[in-house]
Amino acid sequence: MKLFSKNLDTRLDTLYDAIVVGGGMGGLSAAIYLARYGLKCLVIEKGKGRSVWMQDLRNYLGLDPDTPGRDIVNHGTKQAIDWGADHLRGYVEEVTDEDDHLAVKVKIGKKDSTYPVFRTKYLVAASGVIDLLPQVENMQNVYDYAGYTLHVCMICDGFDMWDQKAVLIVGRESQINAAFVLNWYTPYISVLTNGLFSVGDEMRQKLADHGYPLYEAPIAQFLGENHKMSGVELEDGTVVEATTGLINMGSIYHNHYLKNIPGLEWNDENLVTNDMAQTSHERIFALGDLKQGLNQVSIAVADGTLAATQIWRNIRRASTPRKWEENIPKLSTTV
Amino acid sequence: MKLFSKNLDTRLDTLYDAIVVGGGMGGLSAAIYLARYGLKCLVIEKGKGRSVWMQDLRNYLGLDPDTPGRDIVNHGTKQAIDWGADHLRGYVEEVTDEDDHLAVKVKIGKKDSTYPVFRTKYLVAASGVIDLLPQVENMQNVYDYAGYTLHVCMICDGFDMWDQKAVLIVGRESQINAAFVLNWYTPYISVLTNGLFSVGDEMRQKLADHGYPLYEAPIAQFLGENHKMSGVELEDGTVVEATTGLINMGSIYHNHYLKNIPGLEWNDENLVTNDMAQTSHERIFALGDLKQGLNQVSIAVADGTLAATQIWRNIRRASTPRKWEENIPKLSTTV
Repeated sequence: MKLFSKNLDTRLDTLYDAIVVGGGMGGLSAAIYLARYGLKCLVIEKGKGRSVWMQDLRNYLGLDPDTPGRDIVNHGTKQAIDWGADHLRGYVEEVTDEDDHLAVKVKIGKKDSTYPVFRTKYLVAASGVIDLLPQVENMQNVYDYAGYTLHVCMICDGFDMWDQKAVLIVGRESQINAAFVLNWYTPYISVLTNGLFSVGDEMRQKLADHGYPLYEAPIAQFLGENHKMSGVELEDGTVVEATTGLINMGSIYHNHYLKNIPGLEWNDENLVTNDMAQTSHERIFALGDLKQGLNQVSIAVADGTLAATQIWRNIRRASTPRKWEENIPKLSTTV
Repeated sequence: MKLFSKNLDTRLDTLYDAIVVGGGMGGLSAAIYLARYGLKCLVIEKGKGRSVWMQDLRNYLGLDPDTPGRDIVNHGTKQAIDWGADHLRGYVEEVTDEDDHLAVKVKIGKKDSTYPVFRTKYLVAASGVIDLLPQVENMQNVYDYAGYTLHVCMICDGFDMWDQKAVLIVGRESQINAAFVLNWYTPYISVLTNGLFSVGDEMRQKLADHGYPLYEAPIAQFLGENHKMSGVELEDGTVVEATTGLINMGSIYHNHYLKNIPGLEWNDENLVTNDMAQTSHERIFALGDLKQGLNQVSIAVADGTLAATQIWRNIRRASTPRKWEENIPKLSTTV
């Protein structure tokens, strides 16, 4: 059921089988499986995740390629609740290992916040990442294009950039290397540093060898209309023509709440997991963009399947087998 | 495009980037990704796969839980073709390793069959399995319930069997062990051997300890109406009451066409794959039910993503990088 400030007290004595942090694609897939395994689970969703920024999800089998991420999140949330999952809007502040369970402290509400603590046997970390965007004076101007013709994921949207003039917007030198993958889709690449760093001679030469111009002035604004880019205006007055773009400035990982858990294995900001999406901590699983691997919806959805299934196996194997309690009854009759 | 006997000649000189054997969930996901990576791919589908037997797909994020597998296959086939994949109805007879490519021999048509051979750099084995069903005199009687209230996948449909009287139909003794997992969902389990084998004393005792009756006569027919089971009638006249059932008789693997490829690593009938769904043969990938792991739609769909992405990486890295061929043009104008 949906939990709110007013009814969440009913769950403070519950020991959940699993709490899922993040109600995006991976978290909802986990919740649907967990609920259908008959396990008590709670999804905690802070809102505004990467999925709801996707204007159209091109690659996910079974859905039309113009399906917005938001629609899938809404659909999956309803489905998870219908199967029996709890769902709460809140922000997970901290997870504490209390040996035989984990304690999950949640911040509810922006004003007059409350901080309830929920308890769970297993935690599914599905809180994902959010892409860093170029900062311009009027951020609405960025949001007008991001997710439409200005992309953050080459695997998802490279096809839609085919042979178009494209800007590649980066935040540090190593991120320029995306140009040498993006050129599979289009060779008409202009690299924009947004004035954030200086480019070394070697990279400068490599770009020149490929014929990809480099622009180092800060971005003033994106040009175009109806979410369709026509170019980028820089603060020095230059206009770079481009009908599409790729932002490759890195991501913010929503993983702070796990940073104090001892014994978790990290690879940079990604959690290291095994083939069932389990981390090095037996009670903690990690899905999708939080773990190593491709940042794709289909991967997160499969990770949710794996994590939920392993949690079910663990709980089932630790439970007392259900017997047919009566003496074996006379079920059979003769026709 | 859709290929038929009449137009497939146009593709006999093509060296495909990838041929996908099997147009079910995994194969179609791979094809959508491959096409959107701009790769030339062909899906070869024999028809009547496991997916089209699914009457409702409960666990797949984004779709209503009463969506038939057939609808997703139809939708995904159209989507793959729209993005540029070729699709052919046919039966893959054999794959031959010809060093720098693979040759795929296909049987087209049941009568007056032809046997065209297609060539490809990579092969995606996505031909899956089909569940063995109990053989009764009138097989239509089995099909009337299979996929509705008579299930073949406990993870998919266990929830829908909750606390119901259930038959577990098996083909050999070790398969009876599913009873001790199925009892998570319901303890009211009757085990049916369909007269196929004799049960040892130890297993007999274990069933008795759990209170699960064992019926060893062959099945005469399933009882019920409108796809809803009410019981099973055995040839000895016994009627076993049950409103649901699980068939756990094993599967037939559609993998014969790979059996002559040297160096492929198998685990029983499953192909062993790495974390990108690649087999021990660098040109061959395996997805979903053909590889080790959970037989779930979400897993097959993710495997398709992984295989297509690795094939793209391999081909892209071997290709000449595209340069902006003109001298760096004067793209910038001053506002």
